[in-house]
Amino acid sequence: MPRRVDHEERRRQITDACRRVVARDGLEAATFQAVAAEAGVSVRLVQYYFGNKHGLLVATHRAVIEGSAARFGGGPPGDVDQGPADQPPPPRAVLRAVLAALLPLDDARRADAVVLAAFHAAALTNEAVTPQELRGAPRALVDLVSAQLLRARDDGGGTGPASGREDAARLDAELVLASAAGLTQGILAGHMDGETGLAVVDRLLDHLVGPA
Amino acid sequence: MPRRVDHEERRRQITDACRRVVARDGLEAATFQAVAAEAGVSVRLVQYYFGNKHGLLVATHRAVIEGSAARFGGGPPGDVDQGPADQPPPPRAVLRAVLAALLPLDDARRADAVVLAAFHAAALTNEAVTPQELRGAPRALVDLVSAQLLRARDDGGGTGPASGREDAARLDAELVLASAAGLTQGILAGHMDGETGLAVVDRLLDHLVGPA
Repeated sequence: MPRRVDHEERRRQITDACRRVVARDGLEAATFQAVAAEAGVSVRLVQYYFGNKHGLLVATHRAVIEGSAARFGGGPPGDVDQGPADQPPPPRAVLRAVLAALLPLDDARRADAVVLAAFHAAALTNEAVTPQELRGAPRALVDLVSAQLLRARDDGGGTGPASGREDAARLDAELVLASAAGLTQGILAGHMDGETGLAVVDRLLDHLVGPA
Repeated sequence: MPRRVDHEERRRQITDACRRVVARDGLEAATFQAVAAEAGVSVRLVQYYFGNKHGLLVATHRAVIEGSAARFGGGPPGDVDQGPADQPPPPRAVLRAVLAALLPLDDARRADAVVLAAFHAAALTNEAVTPQELRGAPRALVDLVSAQLLRARDDGGGTGPASGREDAARLDAELVLASAAGLTQGILAGHMDGETGLAVVDRLLDHLVGPA
């Protein structure tokens, strides 16, 4: 189906352009004109694919979230300390790799984080997008993190009924993701450098699953 | 000096109006015209006090930060479980009150958090304000939180050299504040309710200073 692939590529080309415009100049700057110019296509084509600005923004947000979910899609990111070849990688290493991958420690992730901050702010005040339209990926991440926490705690011998341990792991997973979001905010704003961010991540993991 | 007081009140009246406009309609909506209308004063008066939009925005951000710092200025917020009258309140109770006071659990704190999210996003992309201009209060909060963590751990009998324990408490204080920022973001966006946010806070305190 070459036709279908063309359409997807074209949509991706336009949402990529929109990401760049928002990361550089903010959400207000993402007009059809500016995005079409950035993508090197006609305004008419942007209209054809996305209808209106709202459609373009929601599709762009989804592209950022899907990109970051894809990083974790096949499990944790690639740079995990694997441990022995015949065993799954140690849960603490998986959790650290997930947290590190969520922080804006390179240009691409920084740009993604800036775009998500712009959408977050806009959803709280404008009608351009609503918080409901911006939901999505986080649930899968909560599942991934809480599964690794349970694995880490099983190895140490779990106590108490399984349901209580699962509830606790779920709250801890929310804590992990909230911490990542807060650290991202601090690093983007320049209140904290990336190295300190990773040191905080290591402290958090010390508390959650014990020292490395 | 009644003159001076008048000036301060007038400035406050205008930055309060600016906060309301930003909380309702976003940073882009905070034109001199809109803020003057909201404050019930002339555009000329806004110009007289703040010079340009940049001056108004920086003053408004400072007003939000100072308002939230004032909540902690005389120590922790008022609704701390005081414990025995002849002793300082237990550190865990202080930490919980600080964290709860940082979350957007009522309309006023929600409005403040929306305004801060708008400034954060704008500082990352626009020239309206820069991240440098938005720094300020967090350091005092890091000090407050890490002092309480050290108190909590002293009571349990500290181990290791004092400097190592202080460094650890500082990283943990950064973790506490990053968590509060991340939980705020999740609650504002409707990904999490306030009750779950407080349950995550309690888990965090369990990890940091042991069960209540």
